[in-house]
Amino acid sequence: MLLLPPTAPVLIYDTTLRDGAQGEDISLSVADKLSIFARLADFGADYIEGGWPGSNRKDAEFFAAAASSPAFPRLVAFGSTRRKSGEASSDPQVAALLAAGTESLCIVAKAHRWQVTDILSASPEENLAMIEDTVSFLSAAPNSKRVFVDLEHFFDGYKWDAGYSLACCRAAMEGGAASLVLCDTNGGTTPWEVAEITAAVVGEFPGVGVGVHCHNDMEMAVANSLAAVNAGANLVQGTINGIGERTGNANLVSIIPSLGLVMRRTLRCLPNLPQLTDLSRFVCEVANQQPRASQPFVGKSAHAHKGGLHVAAIQKNPYSYQFIDPADVGNRQRVLVSELSGRQNILRQVKEIGLGNEEEWAGGKASLILERVKALESIGFSFEGAPASVELMLLHAGGTYCSPFRVLDFSLIVQDTHLDSGSRVVEKQRRRFGINGADASQLQSGSVRATVNVRTVNPKILLPFPECELSADEDPVIERLDVSDGNGPVDALSAALRKGLEPSFPHLRGVTLKDFKVRILDDSAATSAAVRVLISMEEESSGKTWDTVGCDRNLISASMNALVDGYEYACIQHSSACALCEEPEAGMKLQMEKA
Amino acid sequence: MLLLPPTAPVLIYDTTLRDGAQGEDISLSVADKLSIFARLADFGADYIEGGWPGSNRKDAEFFAAAASSPAFPRLVAFGSTRRKSGEASSDPQVAALLAAGTESLCIVAKAHRWQVTDILSASPEENLAMIEDTVSFLSAAPNSKRVFVDLEHFFDGYKWDAGYSLACCRAAMEGGAASLVLCDTNGGTTPWEVAEITAAVVGEFPGVGVGVHCHNDMEMAVANSLAAVNAGANLVQGTINGIGERTGNANLVSIIPSLGLVMRRTLRCLPNLPQLTDLSRFVCEVANQQPRASQPFVGKSAHAHKGGLHVAAIQKNPYSYQFIDPADVGNRQRVLVSELSGRQNILRQVKEIGLGNEEEWAGGKASLILERVKALESIGFSFEGAPASVELMLLHAGGTYCSPFRVLDFSLIVQDTHLDSGSRVVEKQRRRFGINGADASQLQSGSVRATVNVRTVNPKILLPFPECELSADEDPVIERLDVSDGNGPVDALSAALRKGLEPSFPHLRGVTLKDFKVRILDDSAATSAAVRVLISMEEESSGKTWDTVGCDRNLISASMNALVDGYEYACIQHSSACALCEEPEAGMKLQMEKA
Repeated sequence: MLLLPPTAPVLIYDTTLRDGAQGEDISLSVADKLSIFARLADFGADYIEGGWPGSNRKDAEFFAAAASSPAFPRLVAFGSTRRKSGEASSDPQVAALLAAGTESLCIVAKAHRWQVTDILSASPEENLAMIEDTVSFLSAAPNSKRVFVDLEHFFDGYKWDAGYSLACCRAAMEGGAASLVLCDTNGGTTPWEVAEITAAVVGEFPGVGVGVHCHNDMEMAVANSLAAVNAGANLVQGTINGIGERTGNANLVSIIPSLGLVMRRTLRCLPNLPQLTDLSRFVCEVANQQPRASQPFVGKSAHAHKGGLHVAAIQKNPYSYQFIDPADVGNRQRVLVSELSGRQNILRQVKEIGLGNEEEWAGGKASLILERVKALESIGFSFEGAPASVELMLLHAGGTYCSPFRVLDFSLIVQDTHLDSGSRVVEKQRRRFGINGADASQLQSGSVRATVNVRTVNPKILLPFPECELSADEDPVIERLDVSDGNGPVDALSAALRKGLEPSFPHLRGVTLKDFKVRILDDSAATSAAVRVLISMEEESSGKTWDTVGCDRNLISASMNALVDGYEYACIQHSSACALCEEPEAGMKLQMEKA
Repeated sequence: MLLLPPTAPVLIYDTTLRDGAQGEDISLSVADKLSIFARLADFGADYIEGGWPGSNRKDAEFFAAAASSPAFPRLVAFGSTRRKSGEASSDPQVAALLAAGTESLCIVAKAHRWQVTDILSASPEENLAMIEDTVSFLSAAPNSKRVFVDLEHFFDGYKWDAGYSLACCRAAMEGGAASLVLCDTNGGTTPWEVAEITAAVVGEFPGVGVGVHCHNDMEMAVANSLAAVNAGANLVQGTINGIGERTGNANLVSIIPSLGLVMRRTLRCLPNLPQLTDLSRFVCEVANQQPRASQPFVGKSAHAHKGGLHVAAIQKNPYSYQFIDPADVGNRQRVLVSELSGRQNILRQVKEIGLGNEEEWAGGKASLILERVKALESIGFSFEGAPASVELMLLHAGGTYCSPFRVLDFSLIVQDTHLDSGSRVVEKQRRRFGINGADASQLQSGSVRATVNVRTVNPKILLPFPECELSADEDPVIERLDVSDGNGPVDALSAALRKGLEPSFPHLRGVTLKDFKVRILDDSAATSAAVRVLISMEEESSGKTWDTVGCDRNLISASMNALVDGYEYACIQHSSACALCEEPEAGMKLQMEKA
C-alpha cells in the first residue's frame, strides 16, 4: 500500500471561471464571476484562474473589476504562447495577459509533436521557442511572480514522442516556469498511464513544481488527478462540480475531500471543508446548473440510505455503510423511508421557529404535516430551498395564526405588437445600434399590466393619533384593488400587490425582490408541466433575506403564490409597524377566515 | 506501460435492475424491468441481475414473467447467505432465490470481520459456515449452473484483517462459487488499493473467476473497476448510467467503451457499441431520469466543442480534440455557437445548413454575424443550446429568405380567483384529497387565455385540385386571429399559434413541445432582469428534435419569441406540405416584408 508523507501539501488551482466556463450552457456574467471568485477565495483555493483577457472582452472587464479585491493576489490570468514567427514582446494576446495585472499568469503551450506540426502547422523547434520566449517574457514583467505552463495534450504527446514532450517541459523551465502542468486535454488517458508519465516528469525535473489538469471523457478525471498526486504532482487543476468543455474538467468537489480526508494530504482549504456542500450549491445557483443529487460527497443523495438492511445497520453504527462523516463536507446522512426521521425534522423546525407546545406537535401534528409534505413532494411540489414557505406552512397548520393580508384575486394582461423572434432580434439590434452596439434595456417587448385585489388592514389602525381612530362605521379590514404596469409578469404583479399592501405595511417599501427562478417539475408534457417558482427577497436595512416557493401548472399563478408568501413573510418578520402584530387578538379576529 | 493480452475477455454483469433500483428516486415496475432486461440482453450484457426475489414481491413477479424470454439464461437472481444459526436448506430467503428458476445465482456475503461481529452480531466462524453452506446448497440445486458470491465490504475488510477476508473467499470457493466478486461497498477505496488487493486475491485463488463491484462515493468507481481488471479481474458489475444507492454504482456506460475501445479488451457487447447512446437514453426514459448532458461517451455535450481554437482545430482534424470517434458509441460531434466561438463555428453552421456561397460568407458576413452574436451575448442574450434559432438567424441574415409566417401581435390574459400561496396549498390539498392524497393535475390555478394574430399562407394554395385554385380576388396571404385557453402561458400561446398555423401547415400537428426552460440573465434587479426562454420541440414521426430561444425582459414575450422560432423551424424543415417551399419565389414575394 502506498504510504504518503502526511504533510506534503497539494495546491488547489481552480479554473471554474476559465476552463469551467467553456462548458455547454455555462454563461457567466462579470458579476457572476466576481461572486464565485469571492467564494473560492474564502473557501481557500490556492489559485483561481479568472479568464482569458486576450480572447474575451468580458474577461478583461472581470480582471479590472477584481483588482480591488483583497484576494486579487490569488487570481491567475490565462493566455497562450505567442504566435508562431512573432515576438512575445509585440504579441497583442500576450500583452492583454499582462494587462490583467495579476502576479500569477498561466499560458497554454502545445506539448505534442503531432499537434504542433499538423494542427498548429509550426516546426517543432519554433514551438519550443514560442514556449521559452513567452515564459521568459512574462516572468520578467515587473508585476509577475509566477508563470504556470499548461502543457496541452501532454500525456498523448508523451506516448507519441516522449522526448519532444519533455523538451517542451525543458523549454518552459528554462523560461522560468514555476510549474509544469501536465494536461490530459482529450481525456483519454488512464490513471496508471498518468501515474507512470507524471513520475517520469517529476524525476526528470526535480526543481520545478508539477501539476495536473484532467478531463472527464472516460469518467476518470478524479482518479487521474489523484494518481498524478501519488506520483509526485503537487498541484491539481479542476473546477467546482466538474463543469467544463465536453464532459467537464476534473471535479475539485470530489478531489478535495479525497485528498484531505482519505489520502490525508495537507490542503490550504482543509479547515473549510465543512463549507464544501454550500460552495458546490452556490456555484450551481450562479451558473444556473441543476444540482446533481448523486454527486459524490455533496449531493443530496450522496449519504442517503434506502435499503432496509442498510438503514438498520446505520442505526447500529453509521460507518457500516459510509466511509466519511457527511458533516465533514457540510452534508448530512439521510434515511429515505423512515417516518421517524421525518417527524424529527418537522419537530426540529417547529422548535426553531418557536411555535411552542412541542407535546402537541409531537403528539400527531408533525406526522400529519409530514405526510402532507411527502404526498405533495411525490407529485413534484417542493419546499426545498424555500424555508420561509415552510415556516408559513407550519404557522398555518398550527391553528392560531391569521395572515396579515389575503389576495382575493388577480389578473394579468400581456400584449405585444412588434414581435421579434429570437432570430430576428439580431437584425433589429443591428438596425438600432449598429454592428457592435447592444443595450439590455432594449430587450423589452410588449406591455404587461397586472391587477391585484387584496384584503388587508385599514391603514388608519396604524396611526397613533386620536383623530385617526376608526369611527363606528369604519371597518378595520379593507379591500383594495390596484393596478400596475411592469417589465414582465413578476414585475407587474409584485408592483400591483405592493400598491395594495404598502399603505397598511409601510415597511414593505424597504423590501426588494432579489432573485426569481423557474424550474419545470414534470417533463412528461412540457406545456402541461407543473412549474416551480422560487423567489428571494431582501430587507435592505437589515440585509435579511428569505426564499419562498410557488408551484402550479400556471407559471403566473406559481409566481404569484411565491410572491404572496414572500410579502406575508416580510410582514410577520416586521413587528413594529403592523397593527396586527401589536394587537394580535383584535387584529386577527377581525381579519380574514383562517386558511 | 501495462500491456494486456488483447484477447482476454471481460464479462459484463449488469445490476441496473437490482442494485441500480436502490437509487433514490428510482422505482421500476415489473414492466419497466422486463423492457430494460430485453434491451440489455440485445445489447450483449453477459449477466443481468434481475432482482432480489426473497426480499421483494415485485422481483419474484419479474422472474416469473421473464421465464419465457429467450434471454432468460442470462438472468441472475440475487439473495444473501442463510441466516446465522440456521440451515441453508430451510431458509425461506434462500428458497425464494432458487424458486426464481435461474441458472445463475448471486449471494451477498459479509467479508469484513468487523461487519460480521459488530453489525451482523455473529461469530467469524459462523459467517464462514454461512457462506460455504449457502453456496454449496445453491450449487447443488438441479437447475443452477453457477453461483456468484458478492463479498461485501471486501476491500475495507482486507485492510482491516486480510486473513479473514481471504478466508471468506476460501469458504465461497469451497462451496463451489464460480466467481468471487470483490465489493467496494462504501465506495471509499482508491484505485491503487483496489489493484493491489485484487491482484492478491487473483494470486491466491487462481482457479476461480474474480469480479469487482464498485460504488462512486469518491467519483472513482469506473477507475476502480478498470484497475481491478488490470489486476486480473475478469468480471465487472455495474449499472447503466451508474444509477444506484447514494452516489450510484460503477457506470457500465463509461466502463464498456473504456474497456473495449481504449484498453482493447474483448467484450461480448463490443459489436453493439454503436447502440450505447441509445441504450443509455432508453434506461433514462424508463427510469424517469433526466439524461446528463456531460455524461462521458453518450452525453449530449460529450463531444461538443465551444472554444474557438478547439473548433478551428477539429476542422483540420477531428482527433485534435477528441480521443475516440463519437460514432463508435452512437453519439456525434457538435459545434456550439457562443461568445467564445469563432468564425469557424459560424461558417461550419452555414455549410451544414446548406446556405451555400461559402466565399460570400467567409468574405465578411460570418465575421459580421459573429460580432453581432458577441455583442448580444455580452448583454445576456444567448444562442447557446438553441441551434435552430442560430440557423434561422443565419437564414434571415443571408438576404434571400422569407419566413413562412409572421406573428403580427398576441395577447395573454391570466386570472386567478382562489389564490393559494405556497404555504396554503398544503391545506388545500388536504381538504380535497385527505392526508396522503395528492394529484399533480390539481396543481392548477387560474385561467389563461391567449390570442394570436398571424399572417400566413392561404390553405387553398396547398390543395392540388383545380377547383381549389385561388380566384382573382383571393389573396395567397391571409391573416388569422385565433384564441386558445391553456394550463399556463406557454401552453395557451402555443395552442393559439398552432390554431393559426395548422390550416396552412398541417404537418405541425405532428410537432410537440418537449421541454421549456427559463433562466434569468441579469441579476441587478430581479424583476427587471432579462429572461431567456429555451424551448425544445419534437417531430413525432421522425423523432427529430430542435431547440430555440427567446430573450426579453418580458417573460411572456421571450416565450413567444422562442415558440415562433420553433414553429418557423418546423415549417422550413418540412418541405412537402408547404406551398412556399415549392414555389419559393412566388410565395416569398407575396409574403411579408423581410425582417
